Order: sequence, then C-alpha cells, then structure tokens
Amino acid sequence: MNGNFNSILLESAVDELAKLPGIGRKTALRLALHLLRRDEQEAYSLGEAIIRMRRDVRYCPRCHNITEEELCPICSSPKRNPKIVCVVENVKDVITVEATHEHRGLYHVLGGLISPIDGIGPSDIEIDSLVKRVAEEKIEEVILALSPTMEGDTTNYYIYRRLEDSGAEITVLARGLSIGNELEFTDELTLGRSISNRIPFATPK
Amino acid sequence: MNGNFNSILLESAVDELAKLPGIGRKTALRLALHLLRRDEQEAYSLGEAIIRMRRDVRYCPRCHNITEEELCPICSSPKRNPKIVCVVENVKDVITVEATHEHRGLYHVLGGLISPIDGIGPSDIEIDSLVKRVAEEKIEEVILALSPTMEGDTTNYYIYRRLEDSGAEITVLARGLSIGNELEFTDELTLGRSISNRIPFATPK
Repeated sequence: MNGNFNSILLESAVDELAKLPGIGRKTALRLALHLLRRDEQEAYSLGEAIIRMRRDVRYCPRCHNITEEELCPICSSPKRNPKIVCVVENVKDVITVEATHEHRGLYHVLGGLISPIDGIGPSDIEIDSLVKRVAEEKIEEVILALSPTMEGDTTNYYIYRRLEDSGAEITVLARGLSIGNELEFTDELTLGRSISNRIPFATPK
Repeated sequence: MNGNFNSILLESAVDELAKLPGIGRKTALRLALHLLRRDEQEAYSLGEAIIRMRRDVRYCPRCHNITEEELCPICSSPKRNPKIVCVVENVKDVITVEATHEHRGLYHVLGGLISPIDGIGPSDIEIDSLVKRVAEEKIEEVILALSPTMEGDTTNYYIYRRLEDSGAEITVLARGLSIGNELEFTDELTLGRSISNRIPFATPK
C-alpha cells in the first residue's frame, strides 16, 4: 500500500488520517475513499468539526475539564454541589462518571496519573491545583475516582497524604471494580454502585 | 458513551468521526481526545486535508481514476502504453495493480461490478465508456483485472461479449488468485505474476 495514489490530495489525506492512533495506511485509504464517494458535505462537516474543536475547545480553569465556555458547564451549574469534588484521571473519565448519574458534585481532572516508570511525577499533573482548590473552596469531600491500577493507587495515596490535614473527607470508589482494569471499560451499573458505596480512604497500618 | 461531553464542539467532532465506516462512538471519542492532546497543527492539517481532497479531487474523464489534474497522471504519462487498458473495479484497485509494477498500459475504472442482487446493471458502471474508448483509441489489448468473484466473473463475461468483435485482444488475470477472494487483499507477488501470466479470455464451450 505504498503505491502511487495518482493524487497528491488523496495521499495527503491518507497521510493525515494514518497519524491517528490505531489507524494504519490501509484503513486510512479506505476512509479517504469512503469520503470521496459520499456527499461533499460529509467531508466538509468532518474536516470543519475537527478544526473547530481543536481551535475553540479550552480547559476549564477550575476543574481542567474541557469546555468552550469561560467555566465548564459542570462547574457553572447551580444544581451541582460545589463542596464535593470527584478526582479523575482525564476528560474521558468525566464523561464515564457523568453517565452513571451518581455524582452530583464537581470534578477535578488530573490530566494523568503518577507513574515513575513513565517519568510522570506529582508536579506533572494537576495535584497542586487540587490542594489549593480544596483549601480555597472549602471542599468537604474529595472522591478519588482513579483506575484501580498501580498508578491509580500511587496517585490516590499521594493525594491522600497531601490532603489528610485539609479537613476534607477523602473517599475512594468502592473496590467493586476488578483490580487491574481501566476505569473507562467498567460498565455503568458497577461504576455507579461503586460511587454510592464509596468508603473512607485509609492506608494499611 | 451517550453521556454529556460538556463540549458541543467535542460532541460534534465525535459525531462526524463516528460516521466513518468501522469507527464507533468510543473510537471516535478516543480519536477526538487524541487530537485535543496533540499539537494544534495536527488537527488543522487533518481537517484541511480532508476538505481539500473532497473539494479538489476529480475523476479523470478518460479512465475515471481520481486526480486533481485535467487528465490523471497515468493517462498523461508518455511512458505508458496507451494501446493496453487494464479494467479494474475501483480506484483502490488501480493503486493495488500499480504497486506490482507489472502493468505499463493505462486503466479503465468501472466504479463497480455488475451485481443483479444489488440492483447494479451494466449501465450503472463505466462499460459504455470502455466500449467507446476501445473503438476510438484503437485499443489493442483489454486486460480484465476484476476480483475472481461471481460479480467479477459476470462483469468479465459481459465486457467480453461487448468487446469480442472490437478487434482488441481480451485477456484476463491468470487465476493464480484464490477464487472468492477480493483483489485488494492479494499479495503483490501473486498479483504481479497473474498479470504477466494473463491468458486470452474465452468462454466455456
């Protein structure tokens, strides 16, 4: 599939599509030819949606979730309890937790997990801003909703140590989740149950 | 994954990506979030390449291959033999045959195969233009390079009947291809061999 495409424009679309994760050149060519066969408007909508998203999506300065507003819709909603903050690894996990409808507080998106093997330390993710926020906003409960993996547990423990004297209650998702699995692949029922059954975070003696 | 994305722009990019064949909403979200994490330029290049391709790619009026020029680069190349025409189902098959470097003539892209079950008849694909072209351009050999499937065989036979009195020699790819497989999944060596070993097309007595 390294042949001459007879069209620089097709080739350049295939090159760009093949940069996406999990999309090889054969798949990229199939997608590009699909777009060539379909109505023009379909390709324009796709291209413009990608450009507009990348240009106008920002990070919420309070919780670091994505948004195109000043504050994200969750932070600015009067229906949410601003004293409860759910700490998640990334934007996808906000969507995953929201789908359970069990959490009525706000979020704090870390943007990663502590992982010494990947060179990611506490200062590379949004932990300082969480500690500051818990103090300034007088947060009453911090729910740790990280994946039950080694990196998630390490990050949980680090956050717990930083917040244990903050006055906020620190809870962690009930370990109904199977250890070693990623949060995003957990079904909504199990995840919802693990939010309602959340338990105080405590370190083993 | 039907949750609130907290961003209309993200949601709309996911909607558009999920329209692509073989891309579900979970994959679409993964791709969109990947683009949000990467350099802005990467999303812009992708979006623009898709729009430009769809806007400016045309079909070659002679062989119906895609191109952005007046004639496609193969039709306008002085190095190709204009008296030999290789008939293929679609644009992807031009790329596949080109990759073998065994064919030095031109192409004729049918844009489909005769398939009564799908309601595709001879007049729905570029057969009339092929017959006209063979006469007008005094083509000496027509190589039938369609997939060895029922639809491919039907189309081969129909074209053979339309061209048997044209004076052009009608050849067909050597059936080293395994019957029932698609052309595009054939390895380059086998496909190249089946071009050099092509045989006169004849119907069973």
